[in-house]
Amino acid sequence: MSLTKCTQENISRRDLLTKGGKLAVVGAAFISGGGLALAGCGTDSNGGNTMEGNSMTSATNSAQLPWKYVKLSPQDIKKAAELAHENWFQGFCCYAVLSGIVTVLREKVGEPYTSFPVEAFIFAHGGTAGWGGTCGTLIGAGIAASLATGAKTGEAITNQVMKYYSETELPIYKPDAPKAELKTVSRSDTPVCHLSVGKWMKKEGVGFLSAQQMERCARISADMCMKTLEYLNLWADGKFMATTKGPVMTNEIPSQNNCTDCHGDKIPQTSGKFGTGLDLLKAGH
Amino acid sequence: MSLTKCTQENISRRDLLTKGGKLAVVGAAFISGGGLALAGCGTDSNGGNTMEGNSMTSATNSAQLPWKYVKLSPQDIKKAAELAHENWFQGFCCYAVLSGIVTVLREKVGEPYTSFPVEAFIFAHGGTAGWGGTCGTLIGAGIAASLATGAKTGEAITNQVMKYYSETELPIYKPDAPKAELKTVSRSDTPVCHLSVGKWMKKEGVGFLSAQQMERCARISADMCMKTLEYLNLWADGKFMATTKGPVMTNEIPSQNNCTDCHGDKIPQTSGKFGTGLDLLKAGH
Repeated sequence: MSLTKCTQENISRRDLLTKGGKLAVVGAAFISGGGLALAGCGTDSNGGNTMEGNSMTSATNSAQLPWKYVKLSPQDIKKAAELAHENWFQGFCCYAVLSGIVTVLREKVGEPYTSFPVEAFIFAHGGTAGWGGTCGTLIGAGIAASLATGAKTGEAITNQVMKYYSETELPIYKPDAPKAELKTVSRSDTPVCHLSVGKWMKKEGVGFLSAQQMERCARISADMCMKTLEYLNLWADGKFMATTKGPVMTNEIPSQNNCTDCHGDKIPQTSGKFGTGLDLLKAGH
Repeated sequence: MSLTKCTQENISRRDLLTKGGKLAVVGAAFISGGGLALAGCGTDSNGGNTMEGNSMTSATNSAQLPWKYVKLSPQDIKKAAELAHENWFQGFCCYAVLSGIVTVLREKVGEPYTSFPVEAFIFAHGGTAGWGGTCGTLIGAGIAASLATGAKTGEAITNQVMKYYSETELPIYKPDAPKAELKTVSRSDTPVCHLSVGKWMKKEGVGFLSAQQMERCARISADMCMKTLEYLNLWADGKFMATTKGPVMTNEIPSQNNCTDCHGDKIPQTSGKFGTGLDLLKAGH
Protein backbone atom coordinates (compact mmCIF):
# COMPACT_ATOMS: atom_id res chain seq x y z
CA MET A 1 0.00 0.00 0.00
CA SER A 2 1.72 3.19 -1.08
CA LEU A 3 1.51 6.78 0.06
CA THR A 4 2.00 8.14 -3.43
CA LYS A 5 -1.60 9.24 -4.06
CA CYS A 6 -0.92 12.79 -3.00
CA THR A 7 -3.27 14.66 -5.31
CA GLN A 8 -6.30 15.86 -3.42
CA GLU A 9 -9.30 14.20 -4.99
CA ASN A 10 -12.45 16.21 -5.28
CA ILE A 11 -15.44 14.25 -4.12
CA SER A 12 -18.91 15.42 -3.31
CA ARG A 13 -20.95 14.42 -0.31
CA ARG A 14 -23.36 12.78 -2.72
CA ASP A 15 -20.47 10.70 -4.11
CA LEU A 16 -19.54 9.58 -0.63
CA LEU A 17 -23.04 8.57 0.27
CA THR A 18 -23.79 6.70 -2.92
CA LYS A 19 -20.48 4.93 -3.43
CA GLY A 20 -20.55 1.35 -2.33
CA GLY A 21 -17.74 -0.56 -0.73
CA LYS A 22 -15.62 -0.23 2.34
CA LEU A 23 -13.72 2.90 1.39
CA ALA A 24 -16.85 4.98 0.89
CA VAL A 25 -18.17 3.79 4.22
CA VAL A 26 -14.94 4.79 5.92
CA GLY A 27 -15.07 8.14 4.20
CA ALA A 28 -18.49 8.70 5.63
CA ALA A 29 -17.33 7.68 9.09
CA PHE A 30 -14.42 10.09 9.02
CA ILE A 31 -15.44 13.13 7.07
CA SER A 32 -18.93 13.34 5.62
CA GLY A 33 -21.94 14.98 7.14
CA GLY A 34 -23.94 11.78 6.78
CA GLY A 35 -23.66 8.06 6.20
CA LEU A 36 -22.22 5.68 8.76
CA ALA A 37 -22.67 6.85 12.33
CA LEU A 38 -19.86 6.14 14.74
CA ALA A 39 -20.59 3.12 16.88
CA GLY A 40 -22.62 4.11 19.91
CA CYS A 41 -23.69 7.44 18.43
CA GLY A 42 -26.96 8.23 16.69
CA THR A 43 -27.30 10.91 14.05
CA ASP A 44 -29.75 13.73 14.52
CA SER A 45 -31.59 15.57 11.78
CA ASN A 46 -28.85 18.16 11.49
CA GLY A 47 -26.11 15.62 10.94
CA GLY A 48 -24.69 15.87 14.45
CA ASN A 49 -24.11 12.91 16.68
CA THR A 50 -26.17 12.29 19.76
CA MET A 51 -24.39 10.11 22.26
CA GLU A 52 -26.13 6.95 23.32
CA GLY A 53 -23.26 5.16 25.00
CA ASN A 54 -23.65 4.32 28.67
CA SER A 55 -20.39 6.05 29.50
CA MET A 56 -21.81 9.52 28.84
CA THR A 57 -25.29 9.38 30.37
CA SER A 58 -26.91 12.02 32.58
CA ALA A 59 -25.59 14.87 30.44
CA THR A 60 -27.72 17.98 30.31
CA ASN A 61 -28.96 19.57 27.15
CA SER A 62 -25.92 21.67 26.27
CA ALA A 63 -23.89 18.47 26.10
CA GLN A 64 -25.98 17.58 23.05
CA LEU A 65 -24.96 18.83 19.62
CA PRO A 66 -25.64 20.77 17.54
CA TRP A 67 -26.38 23.99 19.38
CA LYS A 68 -28.58 26.59 17.75
CA TYR A 69 -27.02 28.52 14.88
CA VAL A 70 -28.52 31.54 13.14
CA LYS A 71 -27.29 32.76 9.79
CA LEU A 72 -25.04 35.75 10.34
CA SER A 73 -25.12 39.00 8.36
CA PRO A 74 -22.07 40.45 6.60
CA GLN A 75 -21.91 42.96 9.46
CA ASP A 76 -21.90 40.13 12.03
CA ILE A 77 -19.12 38.37 10.14
CA LYS A 78 -17.10 41.57 9.94
CA LYS A 79 -17.51 41.96 13.70
CA ALA A 80 -16.37 38.38 14.32
CA ALA A 81 -13.33 38.90 12.08
CA GLU A 82 -12.38 42.13 13.86
CA LEU A 83 -12.72 40.34 17.21
CA ALA A 84 -10.58 37.45 15.97
CA HIS A 85 -7.83 39.85 14.91
CA GLU A 86 -8.03 41.79 18.17
CA ASN A 87 -8.32 38.72 20.37
CA TRP A 88 -5.18 37.13 18.90
CA PHE A 89 -3.28 39.61 21.04
CA GLN A 90 -5.22 38.38 24.09
CA GLY A 91 -4.93 34.62 23.68
CA PHE A 92 -3.33 33.77 20.32
CA CYS A 93 -4.67 31.86 17.33
CA CYS A 94 -7.10 29.17 18.50
CA TYR A 95 -8.68 31.48 21.04
CA ALA A 96 -8.86 34.25 18.44
CA VAL A 97 -10.97 32.29 15.94
CA LEU A 98 -13.13 30.63 18.58
CA SER A 99 -13.80 33.76 20.64
CA GLY A 100 -14.58 35.79 17.51
CA ILE A 101 -17.31 33.35 16.50
CA VAL A 102 -18.58 32.59 20.01
CA THR A 103 -18.83 36.26 20.99
CA VAL A 104 -21.14 37.00 18.05
CA LEU A 105 -23.19 33.85 18.71
CA ARG A 106 -23.54 34.87 22.37
CA GLU A 107 -25.15 38.07 21.13
CA LYS A 108 -27.31 36.41 18.46
CA VAL A 109 -28.21 33.14 20.19
CA GLY A 110 -27.19 33.39 23.86
CA GLU A 111 -26.92 30.08 25.72
CA PRO A 112 -25.21 27.63 25.59
CA TYR A 113 -22.57 29.81 23.88
CA THR A 114 -22.66 32.25 26.81
CA SER A 115 -21.53 29.53 29.22
CA PHE A 116 -18.89 28.04 26.92
CA PRO A 117 -15.38 28.42 28.40
CA VAL A 118 -13.47 29.80 25.40
CA GLU A 119 -10.31 30.28 27.44
CA ALA A 120 -9.97 26.51 27.81
CA PHE A 121 -8.59 26.44 24.25
CA ILE A 122 -5.82 29.03 24.52
CA PHE A 123 -3.35 26.15 24.94
CA ALA A 124 -3.82 25.19 21.26
CA HIS A 125 -1.80 28.18 20.01
CA GLY A 126 1.47 27.76 18.14
CA GLY A 127 0.57 24.29 16.88
CA THR A 128 -0.47 23.22 20.42
CA ALA A 129 1.49 24.71 23.32
CA GLY A 130 4.12 25.99 20.88
CA TRP A 131 5.04 22.58 19.46
CA GLY A 132 4.37 23.63 15.85
CA GLY A 133 1.64 21.06 15.01
CA THR A 134 -1.81 21.90 13.67
CA CYS A 135 -2.32 25.67 13.34
CA GLY A 136 -4.50 26.78 16.24
CA THR A 137 -6.83 28.73 13.94
CA LEU A 138 -7.99 25.38 12.56
CA ILE A 139 -8.65 23.93 16.02
CA GLY A 140 -10.74 27.01 16.81
CA ALA A 141 -12.58 26.65 13.51
CA GLY A 142 -13.27 22.97 14.18
CA ILE A 143 -14.65 23.61 17.66
CA ALA A 144 -16.96 26.39 16.50
CA ALA A 145 -18.16 24.39 13.49
CA SER A 146 -18.79 21.31 15.63
CA LEU A 147 -20.75 23.23 18.27
CA ALA A 148 -22.97 24.80 15.61
CA THR A 149 -23.55 21.79 13.33
CA GLY A 150 -22.58 18.63 15.25
CA ALA A 151 -19.57 16.36 15.11
CA LYS A 152 -19.85 15.07 11.56
CA THR A 153 -20.72 18.23 9.68
CA GLY A 154 -18.33 20.10 11.97
CA GLU A 155 -15.51 17.83 10.82
CA ALA A 156 -16.50 18.19 7.17
CA ILE A 157 -16.45 21.99 7.53
CA THR A 158 -13.09 21.80 9.34
CA ASN A 159 -11.67 19.77 6.47
CA GLN A 160 -12.82 22.41 3.98
CA VAL A 161 -11.34 25.22 6.06
CA MET A 162 -8.04 23.30 6.29
CA LYS A 163 -7.98 22.85 2.52
CA TYR A 164 -8.59 26.59 2.10
CA TYR A 165 -5.87 27.40 4.66
CA SER A 166 -3.37 25.17 2.90
CA GLU A 167 -4.05 26.32 -0.68
CA THR A 168 -4.52 30.07 -0.26
CA GLU A 169 -2.03 32.94 -0.27
CA LEU A 170 -2.53 34.32 3.24
CA PRO A 171 -3.23 36.59 5.01
CA ILE A 172 -6.04 38.31 3.12
CA TYR A 173 -7.97 40.20 5.83
CA LYS A 174 -7.21 43.89 6.33
CA PRO A 175 -8.19 44.85 9.89
CA ASP A 176 -9.52 48.28 10.79
CA ALA A 177 -6.58 48.80 13.14
CA PRO A 178 -3.53 46.81 12.04
CA LYS A 179 -0.71 46.48 14.56
CA ALA A 180 1.93 46.27 11.80
CA GLU A 181 2.24 46.67 8.05
CA LEU A 182 2.90 43.49 6.06
CA LYS A 183 4.71 43.14 2.75
CA THR A 184 3.99 39.59 1.75
CA VAL A 185 1.49 36.75 1.55
CA SER A 186 2.34 33.06 1.25
CA ARG A 187 0.73 29.71 0.48
CA SER A 188 1.47 27.19 3.25
CA ASP A 189 0.62 23.90 1.48
CA THR A 190 0.08 22.57 5.01
CA PRO A 191 -2.07 23.05 8.11
CA VAL A 192 1.06 22.67 10.26
CA CYS A 193 2.05 25.82 12.17
CA HIS A 194 5.83 25.32 11.98
CA LEU A 195 5.83 25.08 8.18
CA SER A 196 3.13 27.67 7.58
CA VAL A 197 4.56 30.43 9.74
CA GLY A 198 8.14 29.48 8.87
CA LYS A 199 7.55 29.90 5.13
CA TRP A 200 5.87 33.26 5.67
CA MET A 201 8.57 34.52 8.06
CA LYS A 202 11.28 33.62 5.56
CA LYS A 203 9.44 35.48 2.80
CA GLU A 204 8.71 38.52 4.98
CA GLY A 205 12.20 38.51 6.46
CA VAL A 206 11.15 38.57 10.12
CA GLY A 207 11.51 36.42 13.23
CA PHE A 208 8.93 34.75 15.45
CA LEU A 209 7.12 37.09 17.82
CA SER A 210 8.05 40.03 15.64
CA ALA A 211 5.30 42.63 15.21
CA GLN A 212 4.85 41.46 11.61
CA GLN A 213 4.52 37.74 12.45
CA MET A 214 2.04 38.51 15.20
CA GLU A 215 -0.01 40.67 12.85
CA ARG A 216 0.14 37.97 10.17
CA CYS A 217 -1.18 35.30 12.52
CA ALA A 218 -3.87 37.69 13.83
CA ARG A 219 -5.02 38.38 10.25
CA ILE A 220 -5.06 34.67 9.42
CA SER A 221 -7.23 34.18 12.50
CA ALA A 222 -9.68 36.67 10.98
CA ASP A 223 -9.45 34.85 7.64
CA MET A 224 -10.25 31.46 9.19
CA CYS A 225 -13.02 32.97 11.32
CA MET A 226 -14.68 34.38 8.20
CA LYS A 227 -14.24 31.20 6.15
CA THR A 228 -15.75 29.09 8.95
CA LEU A 229 -18.75 31.43 9.16
CA GLU A 230 -19.12 31.35 5.38
CA TYR A 231 -19.51 27.56 5.59
CA LEU A 232 -21.79 27.79 8.63
CA ASN A 233 -24.04 30.21 6.75
CA LEU A 234 -24.14 27.85 3.77
CA TRP A 235 -25.07 25.02 6.15
CA ALA A 236 -27.83 27.16 7.70
CA ASP A 237 -29.26 27.54 4.17
CA GLY A 238 -28.96 23.78 3.53
CA LYS A 239 -26.31 24.48 0.90
CA PHE A 240 -23.08 23.24 2.50
CA MET A 241 -21.50 20.49 0.42
CA ALA A 242 -18.16 18.87 1.24
CA THR A 243 -16.07 19.07 -1.95
CA THR A 244 -13.10 17.09 -0.71
CA LYS A 245 -12.22 14.08 1.38
CA GLY A 246 -9.86 14.32 4.34
CA PRO A 247 -6.28 13.50 3.24
CA VAL A 248 -6.33 10.38 5.43
CA MET A 249 -8.65 8.82 2.86
CA THR A 250 -6.61 9.80 -0.20
CA ASN A 251 -3.19 9.01 1.22
CA GLU A 252 -4.20 6.13 3.51
CA ILE A 253 -2.50 7.78 6.48
CA PRO A 254 -3.26 11.04 8.30
CA SER A 255 -1.23 13.49 6.22
CA GLN A 256 -0.93 16.63 4.19
CA ASN A 257 -1.16 16.47 0.41
CA ASN A 258 2.33 17.65 -0.44
CA CYS A 259 4.23 14.45 0.34
CA THR A 260 7.26 15.31 -1.77
CA ASP A 261 7.89 18.56 0.11
CA CYS A 262 9.23 16.51 3.02
CA HIS A 263 9.89 13.11 1.46
CA GLY A 264 11.33 14.17 -1.89
CA ASP A 265 11.10 11.26 -4.31
CA LYS A 266 11.44 8.73 -1.51
CA ILE A 267 7.83 8.57 -0.36
CA PRO A 268 7.69 5.66 2.09
CA GLN A 269 5.46 2.67 1.71
CA THR A 270 3.29 1.55 4.59
CA SER A 271 3.71 -2.06 5.47
CA GLY A 272 0.14 -3.25 5.68
CA LYS A 273 -3.20 -2.91 3.98
CA PHE A 274 -5.35 0.12 4.74
CA GLY A 275 -8.67 -0.39 6.50
CA THR A 276 -8.37 -4.02 7.51
CA GLY A 277 -9.46 -3.26 11.09
CA LEU A 278 -12.73 -1.59 10.19
CA ASP A 279 -14.72 -4.61 11.25
CA LEU A 280 -14.01 -3.45 14.79
CA LEU A 281 -15.89 -0.22 14.15
CA LYS A 282 -18.70 -1.89 12.26
CA ALA A 283 -19.12 -4.31 15.17
CA GLY A 284 -19.50 -1.39 17.55
CA HIS A 285 -15.95 -1.52 18.87
CA MET B 1 18.70 34.02 14.75
CA SER B 2 19.22 30.32 14.25
CA LEU B 3 17.02 27.33 14.83
CA THR B 4 19.89 25.15 15.92
CA LYS B 5 19.10 25.10 19.63
CA CYS B 6 17.20 21.88 19.41
CA THR B 7 18.04 20.36 22.75
CA GLN B 8 15.11 20.61 25.10
CA GLU B 9 16.21 22.74 28.00
CA ASN B 10 15.04 21.79 31.42
CA ILE B 11 13.74 24.79 33.29
CA SER B 12 11.64 24.97 36.39
CA ARG B 13 8.63 27.18 36.93
CA ARG B 14 10.65 28.96 39.61
CA ASP B 15 13.38 29.67 37.05
CA LEU B 16 10.84 31.18 34.68
CA LEU B 17 9.34 33.38 37.31
CA THR B 18 12.59 34.62 38.74
CA LYS B 19 14.57 35.13 35.54
CA GLY B 20 14.66 38.74 34.44
CA GLY B 21 14.54 40.01 30.90
CA LYS B 22 12.21 39.72 27.95
CA LEU B 23 12.65 36.03 27.25
CA ALA B 24 11.62 34.99 30.74
CA VAL B 25 8.55 37.19 30.48
CA VAL B 26 7.61 35.60 27.18
CA GLY B 27 8.13 32.18 28.66
CA ALA B 28 5.70 33.05 31.37
CA ALA B 29 3.20 34.37 28.87
CA PHE B 30 3.32 31.23 26.81
CA ILE B 31 3.89 28.31 29.07
CA SER B 32 4.16 28.85 32.78
CA GLY B 33 1.45 28.45 35.36
CA GLY B 34 2.00 31.96 36.61
CA GLY B 35 3.76 35.20 35.84
CA LEU B 36 2.66 37.56 33.09
CA ALA B 37 -1.08 37.48 32.43
CA LEU B 38 -2.24 37.83 28.87
CA ALA B 39 -3.42 41.34 28.12
CA GLY B 40 -7.08 41.73 29.04
CA CYS B 41 -7.10 38.68 31.30
CA GLY B 42 -6.78 38.58 35.06
CA THR B 43 -5.28 35.66 36.92
CA ASP B 44 -7.24 33.90 39.61
CA SER B 45 -5.85 32.17 42.64
CA ASN B 46 -5.58 28.86 40.84
CA GLY B 47 -3.54 30.26 37.99
CA GLY B 48 -6.42 30.31 35.51
CA ASN B 49 -7.38 33.37 33.54
CA THR B 50 -10.60 35.23 34.18
CA MET B 51 -11.64 37.26 31.20
CA GLU B 52 -12.05 40.97 31.71
CA GLY B 53 -12.21 42.12 28.10
CA ASN B 54 -15.41 43.79 26.94
CA SER B 55 -15.73 41.36 24.05
CA MET B 56 -16.61 38.44 26.35
CA THR B 57 -18.95 39.99 28.91
CA SER B 58 -22.23 38.50 30.18
CA ALA B 59 -20.77 35.01 30.39
CA THR B 60 -22.22 32.75 33.04
CA ASN B 61 -20.19 30.97 35.66
CA SER B 62 -19.18 27.90 33.67
CA ALA B 63 -17.45 30.19 31.17
CA GLN B 64 -14.98 31.00 33.96
CA LEU B 65 -11.98 28.77 34.54
CA PRO B 66 -10.88 26.73 36.34
CA TRP B 67 -13.76 24.39 37.06
CA LYS B 68 -13.71 22.32 40.22
CA TYR B 69 -11.26 19.43 40.26
CA VAL B 70 -11.03 16.73 42.90
CA LYS B 71 -8.03 14.48 43.25
CA LEU B 72 -8.81 11.11 41.68
CA SER B 73 -8.05 7.72 43.16
CA PRO B 74 -6.04 5.03 41.34
CA GLN B 75 -9.37 3.31 40.71
CA ASP B 76 -10.82 6.47 39.17
CA ILE B 77 -7.77 6.82 36.93
CA LYS B 78 -8.03 3.19 35.88
CA LYS B 79 -11.68 3.77 35.00
CA ALA B 80 -10.81 6.87 32.95
CA ALA B 81 -8.10 4.94 31.11
CA GLU B 82 -10.44 2.06 30.32
CA LEU B 83 -13.02 4.55 29.03
CA ALA B 84 -10.40 6.29 26.90
CA HIS B 85 -9.41 2.99 25.31
CA GLU B 86 -13.02 1.98 24.76
CA ASN B 87 -14.15 5.39 23.54
CA TRP B 88 -11.45 5.55 20.88
CA PHE B 89 -13.64 3.13 18.94
CA GLN B 90 -16.55 5.56 19.34
CA GLY B 91 -14.93 8.86 18.38
CA PHE B 92 -11.18 8.39 17.95
CA CYS B 93 -8.25 9.92 19.81
CA CYS B 94 -9.14 13.42 21.01
CA TYR B 95 -12.62 12.33 22.04
CA ALA B 96 -11.15 9.26 23.75
CA VAL B 97 -8.88 11.18 26.13
CA LEU B 98 -11.37 13.96 26.78
CA SER B 99 -14.39 11.73 27.34
CA GLY B 100 -12.40 9.41 29.62
CA ILE B 101 -11.50 12.29 31.91
CA VAL B 102 -14.82 14.16 31.65
CA THR B 103 -16.91 11.06 32.34
CA VAL B 104 -15.11 10.46 35.64
CA LEU B 105 -15.31 14.15 36.57
CA ARG B 106 -19.06 14.11 35.82
CA GLU B 107 -19.35 11.40 38.42
CA LYS B 108 -17.03 13.00 40.96
CA VAL B 109 -17.86 16.70 40.46
CA GLY B 110 -20.97 16.96 38.27
CA GLU B 111 -21.56 20.34 36.64
CA PRO B 112 -20.20 22.03 34.59
CA TYR B 113 -18.59 18.82 33.27
CA THR B 114 -22.02 17.23 32.84
CA SER B 115 -23.04 19.93 30.36
CA PHE B 116 -19.75 19.99 28.46
CA PRO B 117 -20.22 18.87 24.83
CA VAL B 118 -17.39 16.33 24.47
CA GLU B 119 -18.52 15.35 20.97
CA ALA B 120 -17.56 18.81 19.69
CA PHE B 121 -13.94 17.65 19.71
CA ILE B 122 -14.21 14.48 17.66
CA PHE B 123 -12.99 16.45 14.63
CA ALA B 124 -9.50 16.69 16.17
CA HIS B 125 -8.72 13.02 15.43
CA GLY B 126 -5.98 11.97 13.03
CA GLY B 127 -4.00 15.17 13.55
CA THR B 128 -7.16 17.28 13.00
CA ALA B 129 -9.71 15.92 10.52
CA GLY B 130 -7.16 13.38 9.26
CA TRP B 131 -4.55 15.94 8.18
CA GLY B 132 -1.80 14.38 10.30
CA GLY B 133 -1.00 17.42 12.52
CA THR B 134 -1.03 17.42 16.32
CA CYS B 135 -2.03 14.02 17.74
CA GLY B 136 -5.62 14.33 18.92
CA THR B 137 -4.80 12.74 22.27
CA LEU B 138 -2.82 15.90 23.10
CA ILE B 139 -5.69 18.19 22.14
CA GLY B 140 -7.96 16.18 24.43
CA ALA B 141 -5.36 16.36 27.20
CA GLY B 142 -5.04 20.12 26.77
CA ILE B 143 -8.78 20.72 26.94
CA ALA B 144 -9.24 18.61 30.06
CA ALA B 145 -6.22 20.16 31.79
CA SER B 146 -7.38 23.69 30.92
CA LEU B 147 -10.92 23.10 32.19
CA ALA B 148 -9.62 21.75 35.48
CA THR B 149 -6.78 24.21 36.16
CA GLY B 150 -7.27 27.26 33.91
CA ALA B 151 -5.60 28.40 30.72
CA LYS B 152 -2.04 28.88 31.96
CA THR B 153 -1.57 25.82 34.11
CA GLY B 154 -3.56 23.87 31.51
CA GLU B 155 -1.02 24.80 28.88
CA ALA B 156 1.91 23.99 31.18
CA ILE B 157 0.41 20.54 31.82
CA THR B 158 -0.23 20.07 28.09
CA ASN B 159 3.41 20.87 27.37
CA GLN B 160 4.52 18.24 29.89
CA VAL B 161 2.17 15.65 28.42
CA MET B 162 3.49 16.44 24.92
CA LYS B 163 7.07 16.00 26.11
CA TYR B 164 6.13 12.65 27.63
CA TYR B 165 4.31 11.62 24.43
CA SER B 166 7.32 12.51 22.30
CA GLU B 167 10.00 10.88 24.44
CA THR B 168 8.33 7.65 25.54
CA GLU B 169 8.15 4.23 23.92
CA LEU B 170 4.38 3.86 23.44
CA PRO B 171 1.87 2.39 23.94
CA ILE B 172 2.28 1.25 27.55
CA TYR B 173 -1.31 0.70 28.75
CA LYS B 174 -2.70 -2.83 28.70
CA PRO B 175 -6.51 -2.64 28.54
CA ASP B 176 -8.77 -5.18 30.17
CA ALA B 177 -10.24 -6.06 26.78
CA PRO B 178 -7.76 -5.43 23.97
CA LYS B 179 -9.14 -5.45 20.42
CA ALA B 180 -5.84 -6.69 18.97
CA GLU B 181 -2.47 -7.96 20.12
CA LEU B 182 0.50 -5.67 19.53
CA LYS B 183 4.13 -6.65 18.99
CA THR B 184 5.94 -3.34 19.21
CA VAL B 185 6.31 0.01 20.91
CA SER B 186 7.97 3.09 19.45
CA ARG B 187 9.25 6.51 20.43
CA SER B 188 7.73 9.21 18.22
CA ASP B 189 10.10 12.13 18.90
CA THR B 190 7.17 14.31 17.84
CA PRO B 191 3.61 15.22 18.80
CA VAL B 192 2.66 15.06 15.09
CA CYS B 193 0.22 12.27 14.21
CA HIS B 194 1.60 11.50 10.74
CA LEU B 195 5.12 10.90 12.04
CA SER B 196 4.10 9.21 15.28
CA VAL B 197 1.68 6.69 13.82
CA GLY B 198 3.77 6.26 10.66
CA LYS B 199 6.87 5.25 12.61
CA TRP B 200 4.88 2.78 14.69
CA MET B 201 3.07 1.29 11.68
CA LYS B 202 6.39 0.73 9.91
CA LYS B 203 7.81 -1.02 12.98
CA GLU B 204 4.68 -3.13 13.53
CA GLY B 205 4.29 -3.88 9.82
CA VAL B 206 0.67 -2.82 9.50
CA GLY B 207 -1.38 -0.25 7.58
CA PHE B 208 -3.61 2.58 8.76
CA LEU B 209 -7.00 1.51 10.09
CA SER B 210 -5.68 -1.99 10.67
CA ALA B 211 -6.87 -3.63 13.89
CA GLN B 212 -3.37 -3.19 15.30
CA GLN B 213 -3.07 0.52 14.49
CA MET B 214 -6.49 1.20 15.94
CA GLU B 215 -5.60 -0.68 19.12
CA ARG B 216 -2.27 1.19 19.34
CA CYS B 217 -3.96 4.59 19.12
CA ALA B 218 -6.64 3.51 21.61
CA ARG B 219 -3.94 2.43 24.08
CA ILE B 220 -2.04 5.70 23.62
CA SER B 221 -5.30 7.50 24.37
CA ALA B 222 -5.38 5.64 27.69
CA ASP B 223 -1.71 6.50 28.27
CA MET B 224 -2.29 10.24 27.69
CA CYS B 225 -5.47 10.16 29.78
CA MET B 226 -3.53 8.69 32.71
CA LYS B 227 -0.56 11.05 32.33
CA THR B 228 -2.88 14.08 32.26
CA LEU B 229 -4.64 12.90 35.41
CA GLU B 230 -1.28 12.26 37.08
CA TYR B 231 -0.41 15.94 36.51
CA LEU B 232 -3.87 17.10 37.57
CA ASN B 233 -3.55 15.14 40.81
CA LEU B 234 -0.14 16.71 41.44
CA TRP B 235 -1.69 20.13 40.81
CA ALA B 236 -4.51 19.36 43.24
CA ASP B 237 -1.85 18.68 45.87
CA GLY B 238 -0.01 21.92 45.02
CA LYS B 239 2.90 19.86 43.69
CA PHE B 240 2.74 20.33 39.92
CA MET B 241 5.91 21.94 38.61
CA ALA B 242 6.62 22.56 34.93
CA THR B 243 10.04 21.05 34.22
CA THR B 244 10.37 22.24 30.65
CA LYS B 245 9.63 25.20 28.43
CA GLY B 246 7.56 24.88 25.26
CA PRO B 247 9.82 24.28 22.24
CA VAL B 248 8.79 27.66 20.81
CA MET B 249 10.96 29.27 23.48
CA THR B 250 13.99 27.03 22.95
CA ASN B 251 13.90 27.00 19.15
CA GLU B 252 12.43 30.48 18.63
CA ILE B 253 9.71 29.11 16.38
CA PRO B 254 6.83 26.72 17.15
CA SER B 255 8.53 23.38 16.59
CA GLN B 256 9.47 19.93 17.73
CA ASN B 257 12.89 19.31 19.25
CA ASN B 258 14.27 16.93 16.63
CA CYS B 259 15.08 19.50 13.93
CA THR B 260 17.58 17.29 12.11
CA ASP B 261 15.03 14.50 11.60
CA CYS B 262 13.40 16.62 8.88
CA HIS B 263 16.04 19.21 8.08
CA GLY B 264 19.16 17.04 8.18
CA ASP B 265 22.19 19.24 8.62
CA LYS B 266 20.56 22.13 6.76
CA ILE B 267 18.55 23.65 9.58
CA PRO B 268 17.21 26.92 8.19
CA GLN B 269 17.88 30.29 9.71
CA THR B 270 14.99 32.63 10.40
CA SER B 271 15.45 36.06 8.94
CA GLY B 272 14.60 38.31 11.84
CA LYS B 273 15.12 38.65 15.55
CA PHE B 274 12.88 36.68 17.91
CA GLY B 275 10.51 38.57 20.17
CA THR B 276 10.79 42.08 18.75
CA GLY B 277 7.01 42.49 18.64
CA LEU B 278 6.39 41.77 22.29
CA ASP B 279 5.83 45.42 23.07
CA LEU B 280 2.43 44.91 21.41
CA LEU B 281 1.49 42.37 24.08
CA LYS B 282 2.94 44.37 26.93
CA ALA B 283 0.93 47.39 25.76
CA GLY B 284 -2.24 45.30 25.88
CA HIS B 285 -2.41 44.64 22.14
